[in-house]
Amino acid sequence: MTLVSDCNEGELIAKFAHLLPRGQRTLLGIGDDCAQINAPEGSFIVTTDLIVEDEHFHRAWSDPEQIGARVAAQNLADIAAMGGRCSALVVGVVLRADTEVEWMLSVVRGIGDRARAAGAGVVGGDMSKGPLTVLTITAMGYCAGAPIRRDGAQAGDVLAFSGRAGLSNAGLDLLCGGHVDPLLRDTSACGILGEALDAYRAPSPPLESGPAAAAAGAHAMMDLSDGIAQDARRMARASGVVIELDRSALLAEAAPLTELGAICGKNPFEWVLCGGEDHGMLATFAPDARLPEGFRPIGRVRAVAQGEEATLLLDGVTVTGGWDHFRMS
Amino acid sequence: MTLVSDCNEGELIAKFAHLLPRGQRTLLGIGDDCAQINAPEGSFIVTTDLIVEDEHFHRAWSDPEQIGARVAAQNLADIAAMGGRCSALVVGVVLRADTEVEWMLSVVRGIGDRARAAGAGVVGGDMSKGPLTVLTITAMGYCAGAPIRRDGAQAGDVLAFSGRAGLSNAGLDLLCGGHVDPLLRDTSACGILGEALDAYRAPSPPLESGPAAAAAGAHAMMDLSDGIAQDARRMARASGVVIELDRSALLAEAAPLTELGAICGKNPFEWVLCGGEDHGMLATFAPDARLPEGFRPIGRVRAVAQGEEATLLLDGVTVTGGWDHFRMS
Repeated sequence: MTLVSDCNEGELIAKFAHLLPRGQRTLLGIGDDCAQINAPEGSFIVTTDLIVEDEHFHRAWSDPEQIGARVAAQNLADIAAMGGRCSALVVGVVLRADTEVEWMLSVVRGIGDRARAAGAGVVGGDMSKGPLTVLTITAMGYCAGAPIRRDGAQAGDVLAFSGRAGLSNAGLDLLCGGHVDPLLRDTSACGILGEALDAYRAPSPPLESGPAAAAAGAHAMMDLSDGIAQDARRMARASGVVIELDRSALLAEAAPLTELGAICGKNPFEWVLCGGEDHGMLATFAPDARLPEGFRPIGRVRAVAQGEEATLLLDGVTVTGGWDHFRMS
Repeated sequence: MTLVSDCNEGELIAKFAHLLPRGQRTLLGIGDDCAQINAPEGSFIVTTDLIVEDEHFHRAWSDPEQIGARVAAQNLADIAAMGGRCSALVVGVVLRADTEVEWMLSVVRGIGDRARAAGAGVVGGDMSKGPLTVLTITAMGYCAGAPIRRDGAQAGDVLAFSGRAGLSNAGLDLLCGGHVDPLLRDTSACGILGEALDAYRAPSPPLESGPAAAAAGAHAMMDLSDGIAQDARRMARASGVVIELDRSALLAEAAPLTELGAICGKNPFEWVLCGGEDHGMLATFAPDARLPEGFRPIGRVRAVAQGEEATLLLDGVTVTGGWDHFRMS
């Protein structure tokens, strides 16, 4: 068992370099002061997201590949949510000195596999020891046309969603509540329970939905990272509109989670509205637009009435976010 | 006294957003899933560097502005070392819950001020609580022509250096050895001692030397982050050449550090050769090139002889790096 403290940085980089895709847009890869990335569009988009041990993940609950996949997925979802595709990732890693090299390599493999699947390169990084594990990724990408912003929702638009709402939160509650063995890793035969664990441990955002929504003329789009209640409200405020959620559509999203709700003693409607880290795509389209594959309508956009604020409504009541503010059904 | 644990992320972002420059190349700034940055050259360069509390800095030794300036400077130096200029930074922050908001704002101010001076925007970030402070910056930039790589040194070239060699390590030894009051912050009247403390706490890389070297036709360039011994050897190996250091030129670099060497009981020649975090620019130029302002010749490049390896020589002896391998004079 080799620990990272037994290696110098050069040895560690040599060990994991071959796990990382170079990327089709990489003009100069790992090994110099900077990498160089092609951007024939004449601009690029960029986002950064970090995860901290025992805040965002637990070593006992997730395989290291899943931890790497998780932080990659979060960043890739932000790129997709602009209608973009990822060209390159850089990675910052803080590791405990007693971390096994194999564990670290598996984290790197998880990042590399997700980058490869998205067509992106992993083109640089930095590493330090520290008292706990922190993984920071910065993702860069490109859009075929203008990036789809969150402030473009227009009166008359349909609010649509692609992905799985509430599933990650259900997985977290299964683990937090002790309803599953945290060492259960082969979830393939576990149905919706396995899907929820996978969604929490290593979310699989519908990355293709981002560029597809842009191509279909989406007016506004954002990554669903803090739950529909928070994120749709942010979109409404940024756009200066009122968004009215459709309860029956949200209940349809919650229906597959009924069994898990019973196990955890939670209302699946709450998971759908307030659950974080789903990393689905929330977008608005003109009422006559044909929704791209994967998107379901979950609400509509209207103009702000006189004296009214830009906000999010459910059954005519302002959704202010947080668990306590929802009438559950 | 407000602690970061008294605020939510939105409140914190609102507090520091006005401390951060938008950047002239920023098409879409903070507030969406991604920022968008102009890159009319059709490509961009990218680097990432992180610092960890008690590994790379100590709260008791440095002002928070200096800590922010330090991590910004490291990244800006990597951009300059390709011959580039920085367009945008994104910042990842892990903070202890008991961190004062004012301390955090000062770190952000330090980052923002360095970004502004370099003409760059701070266009995004992510924040989490954790058991200690970690600052990760990713810097993106552009080059007027091709980036200057470290593997381009050619036989016959002059090795030249811009910046201050050994000064940061001298500052660290002053603090580590208890030779100065760590609370001494106004260093303006302290001569070389003050310069050394400043260089350690918040290095000021000669950022303009990077594009100037590129314009002057530099064949190879890199940021001096691990000392001349390590970094010039890396350049020699990457380029497949032998680099011969000039002892008299290095002694001239060490001369201003004589007094500090006496205080710390250290040989300033060791600081110059092996001291880390100087963030100067190490570059090679054709023998007939006019060196840009700030660069001094410190060695020369020759072809590898039969049976010889690409390496770094001092007085004909291979410099293998590390304190023990040098004959001091």
